[in-house]
Amino acid sequence: MKRLNELMTPACLIDEVKLKANAARVAEVCEAAGVALRPHVKTLKSIEAAAIYAPALMPITVSTLAEANIFAEAGYQDILYAVGLSPNKLPQVNALLQKAITFTVVIDSMAAANQLSQNAAQLSNVLQVAIEIDVDDHRAGVKASDPQLLDIAQRIEQTDNLRFAGVMAHAGASYQCFDAQSRNQMAQQESQQVLLAAKTLADHGLPCTMISAGSTPTVLAAASHEGLTELRAGVYATFDLVMAGLGVCAYTDIALSVLTSIIGHQQEKGWVMIDAGWMALSRDKGTSGQPLDCGYGLVCDAHGNVLDGWYVSQTNQEHGIIEHRDGLPADPTVFAYGNMLRILPVHACATAAQFNHYMVTNDNQTCSDSWQRINGW
Amino acid sequence: MKRLNELMTPACLIDEVKLKANAARVAEVCEAAGVALRPHVKTLKSIEAAAIYAPALMPITVSTLAEANIFAEAGYQDILYAVGLSPNKLPQVNALLQKAITFTVVIDSMAAANQLSQNAAQLSNVLQVAIEIDVDDHRAGVKASDPQLLDIAQRIEQTDNLRFAGVMAHAGASYQCFDAQSRNQMAQQESQQVLLAAKTLADHGLPCTMISAGSTPTVLAAASHEGLTELRAGVYATFDLVMAGLGVCAYTDIALSVLTSIIGHQQEKGWVMIDAGWMALSRDKGTSGQPLDCGYGLVCDAHGNVLDGWYVSQTNQEHGIIEHRDGLPADPTVFAYGNMLRILPVHACATAAQFNHYMVTNDNQTCSDSWQRINGW
Repeated sequence: MKRLNELMTPACLIDEVKLKANAARVAEVCEAAGVALRPHVKTLKSIEAAAIYAPALMPITVSTLAEANIFAEAGYQDILYAVGLSPNKLPQVNALLQKAITFTVVIDSMAAANQLSQNAAQLSNVLQVAIEIDVDDHRAGVKASDPQLLDIAQRIEQTDNLRFAGVMAHAGASYQCFDAQSRNQMAQQESQQVLLAAKTLADHGLPCTMISAGSTPTVLAAASHEGLTELRAGVYATFDLVMAGLGVCAYTDIALSVLTSIIGHQQEKGWVMIDAGWMALSRDKGTSGQPLDCGYGLVCDAHGNVLDGWYVSQTNQEHGIIEHRDGLPADPTVFAYGNMLRILPVHACATAAQFNHYMVTNDNQTCSDSWQRINGW
Repeated sequence: MKRLNELMTPACLIDEVKLKANAARVAEVCEAAGVALRPHVKTLKSIEAAAIYAPALMPITVSTLAEANIFAEAGYQDILYAVGLSPNKLPQVNALLQKAITFTVVIDSMAAANQLSQNAAQLSNVLQVAIEIDVDDHRAGVKASDPQLLDIAQRIEQTDNLRFAGVMAHAGASYQCFDAQSRNQMAQQESQQVLLAAKTLADHGLPCTMISAGSTPTVLAAASHEGLTELRAGVYATFDLVMAGLGVCAYTDIALSVLTSIIGHQQEKGWVMIDAGWMALSRDKGTSGQPLDCGYGLVCDAHGNVLDGWYVSQTNQEHGIIEHRDGLPADPTVFAYGNMLRILPVHACATAAQFNHYMVTNDNQTCSDSWQRINGW
């Protein structure tokens, strides 16, 4: 078993103890609310990781058909592909229907409903179709009040091989909610809008089996989830600095970090150069609009303790530049050439995506396992 | 042979005709200057692509040891690893020395020279070591005037199994040079500083076999490269919007694009939703500091013609949002649900990194080949 300080850098570390604690936290929230949890596996895209936060082949959410495929092959039977379907993906969706009994796609327009309806004859199994509801003006979806909602559902329901599954929403605007009160309000809005859509549909003879909502901030908000059939969230498995910046987690909850080596210094500038550039950390600067801009990540010592004030201020492809927020010089012992550090990720989904596998630790000293990640589409 | 419109989206397209033209352009510049070219393979990290811009197993530059390994196995014998070496990589470097006769690493401090010197006995072959020169206060390197320069070189030269190869520099500050004159000046500065370092070393009995400099903007600048033994550049193979924004290439030179499908609309907002989010385009916003901010990429029709004013304004993991710079509504024919578009990359190195393979076209209609990419470290 390798010690962490024997790993090649840069490496993506997962602290399994924290991953389990984060998984338990959200599972308990859902259990207390009496609402099923459908974890989003897009952050880590790993069967081994999902065994912790989506155990017992529970229903899952995916962001690509490549993920759907690998999870279906691992036995997951109830999969929601939560990105608006494009027509060219139908053959792949059909192949998935052989593997996952309950495979649900999402659309949000009559154009999509018509396309799908026209091509449904080529499906060899019944495809579940949900309608995305726009609850926060953030991204995709039809408004709950949009008359098209009924037309889309009817078109699906009237087509052989298609089954109208219900409605789903994701309040992405919750990533702009910097206090508990605004997150509670956003969670309430998310629930209310998706429930309103479901009620409108039911009132017109189109009952929703699936009434699905969620994002990490709204699932963890103190709002009623009553009436929803399920909650969805993803990044809570590892959390990250964006979530910490919102107040949804503490730095010490973050289960993913990038292990890196110090490769040089520019002493006059107070710079420490590391071998984790944007290729390892990603280009995500998701905290740049938050009160504390963490640049490309916060710096920890090799054991994962945050080094106060130190952050990754710049990145090139394989170079990262660390500096202190107040321009303090780098302690030559802590930041000696060859020393290892850990970088907490700004956005775990983006950082994890830069790796093909994760190095797993249970004791913060040794690497107990390596987990494969699926990339691509 | 698949037609491009039969490909799954998102897909990373390479226009081989443009790739060849870009490769020829830089090869001609170097030939005219009488300076060898050592292409950087970090943009595409593909043996098949390198056959075009680094043919005949010519000397290459790499950004990771994983690249070095795959290129060495393909027969490339003269490889420069252009990122400051960390001590934990020495065993991998040693393994590479069995495959690539002339393998060169880069250091820029006495700490690194001492470490390397102390561990050189474990090398089974002679390792070439170059010193990085900081020519523009941009990133790593020692200044040409720094007395440490001689100490580092002497320490290397006095160590068995190490050979002092020379000096190398990369004027990354050239990415901030928005007119030909400032690029010419930066190219001159890059050359002068690295030549000054080489002269200082030679004057002290430490001649440089390698006097290496370059970046795409400085290699293509109208400055003398006299005295350099080689020029390095990478992104010129495909170019991108950052390079176009500097005036180093035209949009029509960009050989890489992301093929994407339209998955929906938010008509009230003038938004067109596509299935290329940051997972396909990367989070790189490298044009945000340029006169024209291209967001996450410029939008072309399916044939690659730029749709004037349309750009990717927002991205989530698998969703991209396209809008018009002046708020024009989306033409329902051009932007119909299911239609394909192409997105020109802001930063080709970052966009290409999001894919495991490229779909290659020679005629802009059909896909002639698929090229593998190596990711990881």
